[in-house]
Amino acid sequence: MTQRVRAATLGLTVGVMHVLVSCTSSSRSTPTPTPEDVMRTPNIVIITADDLGYGDLGSYGHPNIRTPHLDRMADEGQRWTSFYSQAPVCSPSRAALLTGRVHLRSGMYGRQQGVFFPDSQAGLPAEEITVAEALRDAGYATGIVGKWHLGHLPEYLPTRHGFDSWFGIPYSNDMDRQLPNGMDNRTAYFRPEIEYYQVPLMRNEVELERPVNQHTVTKRYADEAVAFIRAHRNEPFFLYLPHTMPHMPLFRSGDFEAHSSAGIYGDVIEEVDWAVGQVLDALDRFGLSENTLVVFTSDNGPWTSFQTHGGSAGPLRHGKGTTYEGGMRVPGVFWWPGTIEPGVTQEIGSATDLFTTAITLAGGTMPEDRPIDGVDLSAVLFDTGSSPREEMAYYRMGELFAFRKGAHKVHFVTEGRYGLPPERTEHDPPVMFDLRVDIGERYNISATQPEILAAVIAAAERYQDRMTAAEPLFDLRGER
Amino acid sequence: MTQRVRAATLGLTVGVMHVLVSCTSSSRSTPTPTPEDVMRTPNIVIITADDLGYGDLGSYGHPNIRTPHLDRMADEGQRWTSFYSQAPVCSPSRAALLTGRVHLRSGMYGRQQGVFFPDSQAGLPAEEITVAEALRDAGYATGIVGKWHLGHLPEYLPTRHGFDSWFGIPYSNDMDRQLPNGMDNRTAYFRPEIEYYQVPLMRNEVELERPVNQHTVTKRYADEAVAFIRAHRNEPFFLYLPHTMPHMPLFRSGDFEAHSSAGIYGDVIEEVDWAVGQVLDALDRFGLSENTLVVFTSDNGPWTSFQTHGGSAGPLRHGKGTTYEGGMRVPGVFWWPGTIEPGVTQEIGSATDLFTTAITLAGGTMPEDRPIDGVDLSAVLFDTGSSPREEMAYYRMGELFAFRKGAHKVHFVTEGRYGLPPERTEHDPPVMFDLRVDIGERYNISATQPEILAAVIAAAERYQDRMTAAEPLFDLRGER
Repeated sequence: MTQRVRAATLGLTVGVMHVLVSCTSSSRSTPTPTPEDVMRTPNIVIITADDLGYGDLGSYGHPNIRTPHLDRMADEGQRWTSFYSQAPVCSPSRAALLTGRVHLRSGMYGRQQGVFFPDSQAGLPAEEITVAEALRDAGYATGIVGKWHLGHLPEYLPTRHGFDSWFGIPYSNDMDRQLPNGMDNRTAYFRPEIEYYQVPLMRNEVELERPVNQHTVTKRYADEAVAFIRAHRNEPFFLYLPHTMPHMPLFRSGDFEAHSSAGIYGDVIEEVDWAVGQVLDALDRFGLSENTLVVFTSDNGPWTSFQTHGGSAGPLRHGKGTTYEGGMRVPGVFWWPGTIEPGVTQEIGSATDLFTTAITLAGGTMPEDRPIDGVDLSAVLFDTGSSPREEMAYYRMGELFAFRKGAHKVHFVTEGRYGLPPERTEHDPPVMFDLRVDIGERYNISATQPEILAAVIAAAERYQDRMTAAEPLFDLRGER
Repeated sequence: MTQRVRAATLGLTVGVMHVLVSCTSSSRSTPTPTPEDVMRTPNIVIITADDLGYGDLGSYGHPNIRTPHLDRMADEGQRWTSFYSQAPVCSPSRAALLTGRVHLRSGMYGRQQGVFFPDSQAGLPAEEITVAEALRDAGYATGIVGKWHLGHLPEYLPTRHGFDSWFGIPYSNDMDRQLPNGMDNRTAYFRPEIEYYQVPLMRNEVELERPVNQHTVTKRYADEAVAFIRAHRNEPFFLYLPHTMPHMPLFRSGDFEAHSSAGIYGDVIEEVDWAVGQVLDALDRFGLSENTLVVFTSDNGPWTSFQTHGGSAGPLRHGKGTTYEGGMRVPGVFWWPGTIEPGVTQEIGSATDLFTTAITLAGGTMPEDRPIDGVDLSAVLFDTGSSPREEMAYYRMGELFAFRKGAHKVHFVTEGRYGLPPERTEHDPPVMFDLRVDIGERYNISATQPEILAAVIAAAERYQDRMTAAEPLFDLRGER
C-alpha cells in the first residue's frame, strides 16, 4: 500500500512499461545509444551508507541529524518503511545487493568470520553475475565509487566483476590496523588518526594512496561520482556509490566539523547527505533527473555498541550484527522524478531486489542458469501492484536466525549487540512478534498464536529447503 | 536552528510583526471586527491528542501508522523535534498549556494522585487566567471541543475558564468504571465496551449523554470543530481541540476499523489524523488557512505499559508517567501557510509556551500579577531568532525529577514505566545525558563531565528557588 502525498502522475507509468518492452533488445552491441534511447533507458544510481541506521535520517525521524538532500529524495520519491539489507554485516550484504542472491549461495559467509579481512584469500567468485555485469551487457557504462569488501585480491576486484571503473577502498576503513604501542582498538576507534588504518585507496586495480585520507574520502567520492555522471551523461549508466562512512572510525572533512548538533556521528551523516546532494545536483544540471532512478539505502543497521559514535535504529530493536529489525531494516528511498510518485510504502523490499529491479528496468537479461532471490519491485515503485516479496530471511554466519512472513517474524536464535560478547540464545519454542503492531519486537506472541507460529516456521523450513549454500569463503585467511 | 526545506517567505514575517503592534489595542470592546481585522489577527487552533507518543506520526518516523493530514501540516509547517508537554500525565499537562504556568503554581498536582478523578473535589482555581480568557479579552470567540480534565464540578468547567462553548468529556475516558462482576481493569482496557466507562459527554454545563459513545467521539469532535469554525469564520477565534483518543481504552468509528496496518492503536491515530484533516479542510474551505495558526501536540508520551495498545516514543526512552524523554517530549507542529515557513527546528519549546505565544500573536494582554513560565516562540516560528527557552523542568507528583539545560539533562529521580509498580530510584550523584548525541538517554556522562553536571544542577536549583508551588489539589477526593 502506497500512501500518496502528492498528486498522481499515472500516465507516466504506462510510458515506463512501454520502455521495458522497447528496450529489451538493447545490448552491449549498441554501445552508442541515440538520444532517444537515453531518454528511454533509465540510468541507475545505487547509493549506500555503511552502518547507517533506520532512524538516522530526518525523514525517518531522527530529531537532530539534518539530512535535507536525502529528505528531498524521500519527499519527491518513494520512501520504504520495510526495506532490508540481506545481512546484518557488510560483506554478505554487499554480495546480495550485487548478485541478487542470498549470500549463502555465493559462499559469502563464514562460520568463524563474518566479513572479509585484509588477509582473506577469497572473494566474490568469478562465476557470480553482478548487476554491473548484467547492465554492462545491456549497454550501460558501469562504475563503482566507494567501498568494495568482496575480496581485495586482484581477481576479485570490482573491475573483474562488471565495473568499468572503480575509485574507492577494498574493505572496511577500520582494517589494516597499525596502532601505536599500547593503544587498544577501542581507544583508537574513538580517537582515530589516519595512519592507524593503513587502508589503500584504489583506482581500478592501482593503489593511489595508502593509508587513504579518510578525512576527505566522502568528499572525493562525491567528486568522482559527479565526474562519472558527467562523463557518461550521453549514454545509459549504472553508478554504484557505497560510501565508506559512517562505519567506525568516523572521519569527516573540515567543512563538516561541528556541522551537526548531533556530534561527530551527525557530522559524518550530514557529509554523506551533502554527497547525495552533489549527485542529485549533477543529475539536475545535466538534465538527467527525469531519466535516472536513484536508490539510497544502508548495508546494515547502526553499530550501537559504539554508543554515541554509532547510529540509531529509531523505534527498531538493536542494530548491526543482530537479526532483530535494527540489524537489517534500513532506509530505502527510490527517487525518479516524474516516474515514481511521491509517497511512503509499507511493502517489503530488500537490497537483494535491486538486482532484479535494475535489470528489468534496463531491459537487461536475467540469469537463467541459477536461482535468483531478488524480486522485481517495479509494481510498488510505479504503484501498479504490491511487492512480490512477502518473506525475509535473517541469516547470521550462514545460519537462519529469524524469518519474516508477512506481518510475523519468528526468531529461532538471537544474539546481543554486535561488538560485545555474543549472548547466543536458542529459542525453543521460537519467539514470534507481530511487526505491524509491535515494531520494537517486545511482545512475544508465539504461545498465544500457535497456528501462525506453525505457519511461519513451515515457511522458513520451505525457504531453507530451497536455499543452496556454497562452501563458506570468509574463513579462508592467512598468508598467500 | 531551522532547517529550510522550502523557499523563504521572509516578507510576511515583517507583516506579522506589524500586526502585533497594530492589534494590541483590540479587545472585547470591539466584538465585531472588520474584515481587515480578521486578516490581521490570526485565528488560533490548538489540537492535542491524548497519550500520543513522539514516534506515532509518519512525519516523526512511525513505519506503519499513516497520518497524511498531520504529515501535511508538518510538510507545510514547522516541525519541532524538542517540543515538550509540561508534565508526563494528563491534568498537570493541560493546566500548564492553558495557564502558561508550571502546574505546581496552580496546585495542579498531588502527592498521592497524579490527575483528577470523578470524585475529585477540586479543579483549576478560578483565579487562574487561561489562554481562552486572555484571548476572549482580546476579542476572540473561544471554544473547546474535547477532554477537559481540570475539574468536573460546575465551578471548574471550561465555561468558567474563558471558553464560550464546550463539547466534550470532563475527565479521562477510562474513568467512572462499571465493570462486569469479576472483570479486572486490565481485561476491560483490552476488551472495552462503551458501558464499562460511565463518562458523561457535556455541552457547556449540560450532560448530553452518559456514557459517552466512545466509538463516535473522535468523529463528533471533528464535526463540532468544523461547526465552530464555520460559526466564527468572520471573527477571530480560538479553538482548543483536545482529543480523547488514543488514551486507553481505545475506540474508533466503524470507518476506521482495520483502517491501519498497525492494529487498533493505528486505527485510532488514523482517525485522529482524519479529524485534523477535517479542521484543515474547513480552514481551506472558508478561506482562513492563511490567517490561522494551527498547532498539534500531545499531552504526554505513549502509555507503553499497554504494549501493542499503547504508542511509540520512537527513538526516545520510555513513555507516559516517566520523566525520561519519552514521557514528555512529544510531536509539536505549527502550521500557518504563508507565514510560517516549512522546516524542522531543534529549538526547545513547550506546550506551556503556547499561552504566551498565542496571546502575543493575538495582541492580547499578558497577566502581570503572577509569574508566567511560558515564553514567546514567535522568533522560531517566523525564523527571526532562537527560542527563549533553554531549560526544561521535569516534574512528577510535584517533585523535580529531572532538568534539562541546553543539550544536557540531569535525572535526580527516575521511575519505571507508568502503569507498572513504580521502581523509584534516587540518583546520587545524578545521572546526566547529552541529548544531542544520546537521544535515547543511554550513556551516563555525569562522572566524566563534572563541570557541566554542576552547572545543570545549579540551574535546576535556581529554577526550583523561583518556583512557587501552591498546595496540591489532586489529593482532595471523596464525597461532596
